Amino acid sequence: MAKYKIGIIGFGKIARDQHAPAIVNSPNFELAAISNVSGGPSPGSIPSFATYPEMLKQVADLDAVAICTPPGPRRTIAADCLAAGKNILLEKPPAGTVTEVADIEHRAKAAGKVAFATYHAQHNAAVKAAAAALTGKRVKVLQVTWKEDIRRWHPGQDWILDAGGFGIFDPGINAMSILTRIMPEPIFISSAELYVPANRQGPIAADLSFSTGLQPDEQLRGVLDWRQTGPQTWEIDVETTDGLKLKLSDGGARLEIAGQPPLIGPPDEYPDIYREFASLLDASQSKVDAAPFQLVADAFMLGRRTPVEAFSF
Amino acid sequence: MAKYKIGIIGFGKIARDQHAPAIVNSPNFELAAISNVSGGPSPGSIPSFATYPEMLKQVADLDAVAICTPPGPRRTIAADCLAAGKNILLEKPPAGTVTEVADIEHRAKAAGKVAFATYHAQHNAAVKAAAAALTGKRVKVLQVTWKEDIRRWHPGQDWILDAGGFGIFDPGINAMSILTRIMPEPIFISSAELYVPANRQGPIAADLSFSTGLQPDEQLRGVLDWRQTGPQTWEIDVETTDGLKLKLSDGGARLEIAGQPPLIGPPDEYPDIYREFASLLDASQSKVDAAPFQLVADAFMLGRRTPVEAFSF
Repeated sequence: MAKYKIGIIGFGKIARDQHAPAIVNSPNFELAAISNVSGGPSPGSIPSFATYPEMLKQVADLDAVAICTPPGPRRTIAADCLAAGKNILLEKPPAGTVTEVADIEHRAKAAGKVAFATYHAQHNAAVKAAAAALTGKRVKVLQVTWKEDIRRWHPGQDWILDAGGFGIFDPGINAMSILTRIMPEPIFISSAELYVPANRQGPIAADLSFSTGLQPDEQLRGVLDWRQTGPQTWEIDVETTDGLKLKLSDGGARLEIAGQPPLIGPPDEYPDIYREFASLLDASQSKVDAAPFQLVADAFMLGRRTPVEAFSF
Repeated sequence: MAKYKIGIIGFGKIARDQHAPAIVNSPNFELAAISNVSGGPSPGSIPSFATYPEMLKQVADLDAVAICTPPGPRRTIAADCLAAGKNILLEKPPAGTVTEVADIEHRAKAAGKVAFATYHAQHNAAVKAAAAALTGKRVKVLQVTWKEDIRRWHPGQDWILDAGGFGIFDPGINAMSILTRIMPEPIFISSAELYVPANRQGPIAADLSFSTGLQPDEQLRGVLDWRQTGPQTWEIDVETTDGLKLKLSDGGARLEIAGQPPLIGPPDEYPDIYREFASLLDASQSKVDAAPFQLVADAFMLGRRTPVEAFSF
């Protein structure tokens, strides 16, 4: 079967470090073009264009595009690419607002093209195993702990703490995406405490309370914090009503279930994204998941804001 | 045809002033029971219960319920009522978070019951006429002006300016619901400035910038403000690319189109809600519209916060 010819739109760090290698190493895709506004080097001999309309025009036989820009312009880009007959891939967060995600889904359907909006953390083998282990069970206790060092992961990125930058929910959406993937029942934000540096708009930390309607909310909690130096913590602990205890750690790469040897998945998130994208293309089927992003928007809507110490990089 | 037997859950001001009379005067419904936690008087001889589970148990032949509680508990109530085999009506905002709205929709589908989540302002004849007038056109200029006096409409309601109370978006969602009803193309929040009293969590005013991808965002604006004394202003002005100019005023009750006599609808929002609910019940068809609420959540997520003068009732 011929490979799908794919172009990357937006060639920043994540496209360079993750998408491009995953595509190049995939049996299903051929990296045929890159649109790179900032004009940095493109890998090997891949044709590179300054704008995506130029790319769409010059490499007319692209089957698909991976839209790797910042979230703000994604809806417009997605609409243009769908109108040009391309299938589209969007990694988290899928767009600048949740309303835009629904629009992308509708346009893909109207165009008869595939839209795949996904979240890299969901593509860990350990996350899938956790979802399987929780199927049919009921969660009694949930503790999300997502603590990392903003200076280490986002040095100098002032926009990320500005309005529309999502603040701590930029990494926090990874935790939300694991939650919506593994929880055996729907989960909602019941309250949120947002800690906002005196000189910023976005939260640098958040305490979340969740609800399932099946357990007291105080047993379903989340702590997100960007002020953690030293070891980084990306963990989700779950206890079910029938006594199963499991812990996802390393951002979803590692699963421990009491009484079993740990499952440590390979660093395989982006290759798995492209495997699933190929399956969806083979089946002409879209998959647009707005649920993790919706939890983020809900947290902002319900959030109580507490000012904290000013933050500088 | 026999009337649908309906119960009201939550018998506060809006249920008493709007839902109950609309039901009593409807040819399609019979007001058969009321659940009224606060225990105020119920109209005429309608059976009244202290809790909705008690109502569902004692008046087992209810066809439907109108859930008129504050938004927080609505998802749980909706889930319980659907599980008990009841069709449900929810007026704005449909639930406490947007994620919960999708859950209600899924549960109704799974239960084979009708869920109708609607917004009263959409039920004005003038709003429907505006939507018809804009069909197939392209909006060039949009100005939403929603200015009212919080002390007049919400005296002493501190919760409305607290976290989760939605602030100015409590009335502002009415404007959003008209927008999503009349706009001929999808509309998104592109930025929001939220004005938050120094002693409160919720915005008392907001400047909104919208986007359609078809016009410069600066031509698509909204101003919401709860600090307006004197005359109250609930207006939406629209100009299309082909020169049509229309103004909705009085919260959607009045439509003026340049060159035509004004259309002034009757005060008919809630009767129209129940007419449409009856049609949906006749057709066993749900209609769950989350779009206006989604715009509100998006505005909170993108919103830049500016502190303003402390507010006291």
